[in-house]
Amino acid sequence: MLKLYTYFRSSAAYRVRIALNLKGLAYQSVPVHLLKSGGEHLQDGYRAINPGAMLPSLQDGDAILTQSLAILEYLEEVYPDSALLPADPLGRARVRALALTVACDIHPINNLRVLKYLGGTLHLSDEAKTEWYRHWVRQGLAIIETHLARDPQTATFCHGATPTLADCCLIPQVFNAQRFQVDVSAYPTIAAIHARCSGLPAFIAAHPAQQPDAE
Amino acid sequence: MLKLYTYFRSSAAYRVRIALNLKGLAYQSVPVHLLKSGGEHLQDGYRAINPGAMLPSLQDGDAILTQSLAILEYLEEVYPDSALLPADPLGRARVRALALTVACDIHPINNLRVLKYLGGTLHLSDEAKTEWYRHWVRQGLAIIETHLARDPQTATFCHGATPTLADCCLIPQVFNAQRFQVDVSAYPTIAAIHARCSGLPAFIAAHPAQQPDAE
Repeated sequence: MLKLYTYFRSSAAYRVRIALNLKGLAYQSVPVHLLKSGGEHLQDGYRAINPGAMLPSLQDGDAILTQSLAILEYLEEVYPDSALLPADPLGRARVRALALTVACDIHPINNLRVLKYLGGTLHLSDEAKTEWYRHWVRQGLAIIETHLARDPQTATFCHGATPTLADCCLIPQVFNAQRFQVDVSAYPTIAAIHARCSGLPAFIAAHPAQQPDAE
Repeated sequence: MLKLYTYFRSSAAYRVRIALNLKGLAYQSVPVHLLKSGGEHLQDGYRAINPGAMLPSLQDGDAILTQSLAILEYLEEVYPDSALLPADPLGRARVRALALTVACDIHPINNLRVLKYLGGTLHLSDEAKTEWYRHWVRQGLAIIETHLARDPQTATFCHGATPTLADCCLIPQVFNAQRFQVDVSAYPTIAAIHARCSGLPAFIAAHPAQQPDAE
């Protein structure tokens, strides 16, 4: 069975949980706590699995895969049912660009290790760290909103009538935005897609609150 | 003809230039200066092309593509000759994970807009900004070095005997590292791959110093 190294609130793990659920793939959750014991992800045991000490990692048989977007592409190639990418190259590029806007332009800048550096090394106040977080979320969501709002391919979901990799990345980012009190209603297309995804079993089961390690 | 919106020193544009050259695809360079006139990428003309106001963008016929990794995947799908991904799903996942370690875990944190925020909003000194830059480069390159050094699939290039998306992302990151005086010899596998790539015409022609807008 597929084994997912995960943490309930990890945004990147959340992406993969959605994809696994959309494809109906059963998997075993292996929780790795990012805060307990100075960070279980930073310990040798997990570093042997994932030298980047980041979540998620996916084990399929003997193989261990890292980087959430590489895992999503792998799942799409090996388990093509319930496709998460459209068939046409331009559509695929559009979906990937939306996913990458979350995965490159918002999330890494707000990741735990960056926030730790801001607080620990640069001695930023909690207030300044929160403003940092919101700044990049707002800027990134505004870019995604512009892309979505101006393109007729945006429909029930980010691209057409079924969820894609773009939705797998966007919904966890909206969760993070709300956690930091960013008003997502300022991005009406995103908010509408979020509302629709939030009613689907695959997204509900992947939500942080539904994980075995939720606190 | 393909049209690439580029800036000679943009690391993400550099990735796409390498891929275009490796595939032997002719393209027209459209320089977008990141520093002149307060940043040409921030002006309405370029924002209409790329709402994220980032480089690169690729125009193929009437279509405009954004996000360098989405562009690389598109080129691979539409122009499959001189493949930049291996054929097997696990190999593809490995190459993508290496590329994403650069594209998600190093580059966005050190991007121009982040450095501007550190200096402008947080009033960090140039010294502290440089230390920030080097910190994420060192951490990221160390992760990539571990991945490369422990895996027998690492060979002439990051994955096997021909360049892949991983090399397209790694070489521009090494250029950035050297620009900020990070000693790349601390990562011997990366340094060796960098030396080999640096001798190839596709990489030479994509180098910032060889661009029409180089300063």
